[in-house]
Amino acid sequence: MTAEPLVNRPDGAVDGAAGPSGRRGRRPSRGPGSLLEVAVGEFITRGYDATSMEHLSQAAGITKSSFYHHFSGKEALLRAALERALDRLFAILDEPGAQHGPPLERLRYIVRGQVQVLIEDLPYVTLLLRVRGNTETERWALERRRAFDAHVASLVRDAVVAGDLRPDVESWLAARLLSGLVNSVVEWYRPGRGTAHLPEAVARAAFDGILPAR
Amino acid sequence: MTAEPLVNRPDGAVDGAAGPSGRRGRRPSRGPGSLLEVAVGEFITRGYDATSMEHLSQAAGITKSSFYHHFSGKEALLRAALERALDRLFAILDEPGAQHGPPLERLRYIVRGQVQVLIEDLPYVTLLLRVRGNTETERWALERRRAFDAHVASLVRDAVVAGDLRPDVESWLAARLLSGLVNSVVEWYRPGRGTAHLPEAVARAAFDGILPAR
Repeated sequence: MTAEPLVNRPDGAVDGAAGPSGRRGRRPSRGPGSLLEVAVGEFITRGYDATSMEHLSQAAGITKSSFYHHFSGKEALLRAALERALDRLFAILDEPGAQHGPPLERLRYIVRGQVQVLIEDLPYVTLLLRVRGNTETERWALERRRAFDAHVASLVRDAVVAGDLRPDVESWLAARLLSGLVNSVVEWYRPGRGTAHLPEAVARAAFDGILPAR
Repeated sequence: MTAEPLVNRPDGAVDGAAGPSGRRGRRPSRGPGSLLEVAVGEFITRGYDATSMEHLSQAAGITKSSFYHHFSGKEALLRAALERALDRLFAILDEPGAQHGPPLERLRYIVRGQVQVLIEDLPYVTLLLRVRGNTETERWALERRRAFDAHVASLVRDAVVAGDLRPDVESWLAARLLSGLVNSVVEWYRPGRGTAHLPEAVARAAFDGILPAR
């Protein structure tokens, strides 16, 4: 369930740094980042509602009280995990490539960035996309997801107004299909498949068609 | 949760016909089709694992033993629901438009058909797409889904061989993105939005791009 080592992650520490020296001498330390990774794996496998702190401490190989030392409970773990995915996605929107230039180029930049985040933080994004709004944290995450989608949708409208899209494109539908296409990658992408070109390939599919005729 | 009345459904009866005359005189009969609809709604809202026969009989407004008269249990309901979605999807592949003609035209026909089934049987398809393989029935459904996707993937390969697609299209990736695009519609589609043109619009997005430049 755990993903391969992730790289280029500016937000590695989630709840304060774990520190390079483990508390238990030479054994690898179970810092908050590592516990979060274990929890996300369990949430995805069992479903959030069906996962207990008991399950989590067993999966992490530590006592429940060690777990509570780092996280106040299950919902705090869920929030930290969803926050990580959301922060990375929103960070794309602040990058120069998403801020400047014609709307279509900005959209292309954002699509590539979304796929890149998905590749690097697959379990976190998977969890985010499964959220249905059953808890306060889930509703908060859904609202942030909607804000992200609204930003993309407004760029699609800008592209329509700029006359850069074919006139038969409905902006609301295009924004939804775009989000659906990008997010569907979590359903089948698995690390290590040699898919370095995936961000560009998904962007090309969105702009030129998945099945473009010759 | 319940969908608007569904039409053009050749497979309405699921477990033997309910018969037009209700057993309880003038009160609307709770035939197997109606119980199935209630169960699918509960499965989607609560999750299959968290739903008990108690929940189902309460939601249907009948006793548990009446429920057992029609279905042997929760898993039989799940199977009937998944079967309905799968049978309708596979029926598309047997239609002349999916059987004859150039691969790209057959793919276009299948995409339109998938979206049409999704519109008409939204809760059933939603349930099918949430299946993760936790029970024997779920694994059976996943296997049938894979067979459907494999059929589509082989048509994509045929289109590549026929030289009808741009040479940079990778057939395995295109097949996955195509399935992702179509299935993502369940995430936001709600009945009654005036989306009669949706099947054609999704097909156009798949072939010409979601955001085709002018």
